[in-house]
Amino acid sequence: VSEPVAIGVDVGGTKLVAATVTRDGRVLERRRKRTPAGRADLLVDTVDRLVADLGGTLPVGVGIAGLVDAGGVVRYGPNIGVRDLPLADELSQRLGREVTVGNDATTAAWGEYLVGAATAARDAVMLTLGTGVGGGVIVGGRLLEGAHGFGGELGHVIVQEAGRPCPCGNLGCLEAYASGTAIGLTARERLVNRDITSSLRDVDELDGKAVTSAALAGDDFAAEVLRDAGTWLGVGLASLVNVLDPELIVVGGGAAIQAGPFVIPAAVAAMRERVLGHDVRGLPDVVPATLSDDAGMIGAALRAVEAAA
Amino acid sequence: VSEPVAIGVDVGGTKLVAATVTRDGRVLERRRKRTPAGRADLLVDTVDRLVADLGGTLPVGVGIAGLVDAGGVVRYGPNIGVRDLPLADELSQRLGREVTVGNDATTAAWGEYLVGAATAARDAVMLTLGTGVGGGVIVGGRLLEGAHGFGGELGHVIVQEAGRPCPCGNLGCLEAYASGTAIGLTARERLVNRDITSSLRDVDELDGKAVTSAALAGDDFAAEVLRDAGTWLGVGLASLVNVLDPELIVVGGGAAIQAGPFVIPAAVAAMRERVLGHDVRGLPDVVPATLSDDAGMIGAALRAVEAAA
Repeated sequence: VSEPVAIGVDVGGTKLVAATVTRDGRVLERRRKRTPAGRADLLVDTVDRLVADLGGTLPVGVGIAGLVDAGGVVRYGPNIGVRDLPLADELSQRLGREVTVGNDATTAAWGEYLVGAATAARDAVMLTLGTGVGGGVIVGGRLLEGAHGFGGELGHVIVQEAGRPCPCGNLGCLEAYASGTAIGLTARERLVNRDITSSLRDVDELDGKAVTSAALAGDDFAAEVLRDAGTWLGVGLASLVNVLDPELIVVGGGAAIQAGPFVIPAAVAAMRERVLGHDVRGLPDVVPATLSDDAGMIGAALRAVEAAA
Repeated sequence: VSEPVAIGVDVGGTKLVAATVTRDGRVLERRRKRTPAGRADLLVDTVDRLVADLGGTLPVGVGIAGLVDAGGVVRYGPNIGVRDLPLADELSQRLGREVTVGNDATTAAWGEYLVGAATAARDAVMLTLGTGVGGGVIVGGRLLEGAHGFGGELGHVIVQEAGRPCPCGNLGCLEAYASGTAIGLTARERLVNRDITSSLRDVDELDGKAVTSAALAGDDFAAEVLRDAGTWLGVGLASLVNVLDPELIVVGGGAAIQAGPFVIPAAVAAMRERVLGHDVRGLPDVVPATLSDDAGMIGAALRAVEAAA
């Protein structure tokens, strides 16, 4: 049980982590580098070296922030600065073994389903609230990939037509209201009103983390900003429940875990009052993720095991 | 091939149709009654008699307008006036054979997938735009049922938080903007503006059908009302594409078929500009349903065949 079965790699906007992972999702050895943003060749090099450094011939699975197609091509990864990068093929050639590549939030959902918070649910939805909002969907015990591999982009469910600009270029996506970035923006926008009293006025970098810290320290304004983000999350969840009818909703990422006491109850309340037939049906529980930041890496490793089987 | 393999039953808000159906989805013999609204006992009686009248011992599948759980209990059917009706069990007892019951729009999606417009797509989404907006989702060649059987309620994707009231009690659902009912309402609301010239001013019952007839006869105002409904449909489709990444989207029902030349192009345009990474990815085609009003009945019959196998 303590044997490594695969190597998982998580390629995020700032850091790149690779590790050996056991069948039950434990991380054994870990290597870490800064992500070489905007340099596809250097990115492939870095992953190649980290994996080689972990040794052996274990299958390799990569989760990366971006739109990844079913062939392992990163079609669009704005946070990493790559486009149309055939990452699976290039890494397979370098490493001389099959490498699977998927979206990081989607592999995270798979990790939470196999060895995390959603092991008991054959129909589950997972959202990761961080810099952006990512997601993954489990339908009947299988990862929803979609026709091209792009399924599960839950941060881009539209909650308000012609609403707030989203980094994706669209308006009114869930991500524009419930990501850590969005939470920081909401706080900055509202503090233009000089009548508001808040410890956040004295903060240099007013981002989502600062809002969460202030709320946890008793700042009422900060708590309200988080609850409002939670309400928007609940609107998105209501749409997802109407479409997918999951048994369980798992939320991960900083804006859900540390800020959970403010965000989650508001999300659950907003979801409950909006789901079709909410008074006659079972509604899913909303629970925190358990694999923390490692979920994407663990899920990617365990998908590689399946692909190799 | 021309042998009947099952009996399909479609229970709608106004009419109840039962028919023998072949494996390739052709309807052979058909029986029809008014739906006894608000009378659960009479509803069961009517279905029982129509099915008995078609003779034989073929498996029976029912599609009904309402929230149906995985055990065939109609938990909530506002258009039919029933609640918590164990329709599958009651019909099974009466008819002495297994009866499967599902939501009508969901069984319609299954019909379009097996023998209609979506036979080539293993990942497909179907919406039915009628009095309300129903839906069904195919993921990897399987019908998405969800944890309780309530999956695929695509009319209740929220497109505008705190928007127009929806018959479901929520605000801002797709159904509140893109159903036939909504189209009629939009026209009536806008005609309050006396500056608008339209043949619809002379219409007694200004519903979705009247708007479509006027648009087809060249009324510019009516055409604009339909295009705007199409734009809202496109907003909902963008969310669905981001979540499900279907290969194909099938739209059925009067507000999509007869009004299709106005609704569909507007929906496609609105969807295309809103989907995440729309400039780097394949987008699904949007095509009309081919089974017309029989889709729910045919899909229900074919699901019954599988259940009996």
